[in-house]
Amino acid sequence: MEDNKNETSNIVWHQSDITKEDRQKLHGHKSLMIWFTGLSGSGKSTIANALQHELYKDGSSVYLLDGDNLRHGINRNLTFTEEDRKENVRRTAEVGKLFVDAGVVVLAALISPYAADREQARILFEPEEFVEVYVKCSLQECEKRDPKGLYKRARLGEIKQFTGISQPYEEPQNPEITIDTTVMSVKECVQEIQSYLKNKIHLREEE
Amino acid sequence: MEDNKNETSNIVWHQSDITKEDRQKLHGHKSLMIWFTGLSGSGKSTIANALQHELYKDGSSVYLLDGDNLRHGINRNLTFTEEDRKENVRRTAEVGKLFVDAGVVVLAALISPYAADREQARILFEPEEFVEVYVKCSLQECEKRDPKGLYKRARLGEIKQFTGISQPYEEPQNPEITIDTTVMSVKECVQEIQSYLKNKIHLREEE
Repeated sequence: MEDNKNETSNIVWHQSDITKEDRQKLHGHKSLMIWFTGLSGSGKSTIANALQHELYKDGSSVYLLDGDNLRHGINRNLTFTEEDRKENVRRTAEVGKLFVDAGVVVLAALISPYAADREQARILFEPEEFVEVYVKCSLQECEKRDPKGLYKRARLGEIKQFTGISQPYEEPQNPEITIDTTVMSVKECVQEIQSYLKNKIHLREEE
Repeated sequence: MEDNKNETSNIVWHQSDITKEDRQKLHGHKSLMIWFTGLSGSGKSTIANALQHELYKDGSSVYLLDGDNLRHGINRNLTFTEEDRKENVRRTAEVGKLFVDAGVVVLAALISPYAADREQARILFEPEEFVEVYVKCSLQECEKRDPKGLYKRARLGEIKQFTGISQPYEEPQNPEITIDTTVMSVKECVQEIQSYLKNKIHLREEE
């Protein structure tokens, strides 16, 4: 069956006559991927949601790909092994790329514990289109918060594969933005990101 | 490893505070999935592209998921076995659902030969959100056109799994729209679809 794989070479790329730039013009802003990575309970979804709200209020076409929600849809047939986490990140990045191509500011919030997988996600995009946000929070603090009670169950051995407990989390070395939710409020985190984005998503007047 | 699967039950759905309706309001129109199915060479990509162009000109936020292009991205690790074709359709439908949720009119153009798989795609959407377009064209005519030279190679046995030659194409029984590209021009096909969409994507004034 290996020859099936090679049939991909039979597939012709169809260039759409409506471009990413056309769609950005329609929406009135540039599109990019804002990738939130961090431990479970660090605050990724909360901050991404709050940022989404602010961008929407500004009139931007924005969409949040929440790792947990994707596990109910496109990624529902994936487990939590290292291999499947890799595929989880890959698919999310590919979906994000489609959204960026569609002219949408797309936010992705998922643990994405392995640096190599995040790097694979990044290289799908133009350099200025990918913004990695490290949602930093100590394991101790995440475990104290434990908003879904998952750390407790991981400690009890009820969840076998859990980042920070039985699987590693590789900290980003050069993220575009680091926000520390141990000391910053949600509002402060959002403002920090907005300030970074300021000149990145607005189309210049002459465009 | 089977217990990994069950960990999906640990995943909490995060409700975004920006809704599909909010995004539709921002874009000024409703969102839906227009699903083109038909044999290779029937004209799916051509017609979907032309329709996309018209919708864009009308100021709609529109995006085309082309089956061939997705095979270079989100679906790059899939082959052409029946099982993988099913997964190809499933992922495309799930991506489409995200776009509809994002307030975008999304077009999908892929052979999607199995009726059951298309049905699985349909049920992901609200009834009024899914429009199946059967791009009808006889095998004889598609083979005569053979724009990518694939039929020839399939007949020579160089491509083992090819819809219409060595794999079945199950005709849609109740598509919302049927367009016959043997007798209709691209322009006529697009007009037929636009006429169907007329009252479906515009938000009512009071909205």
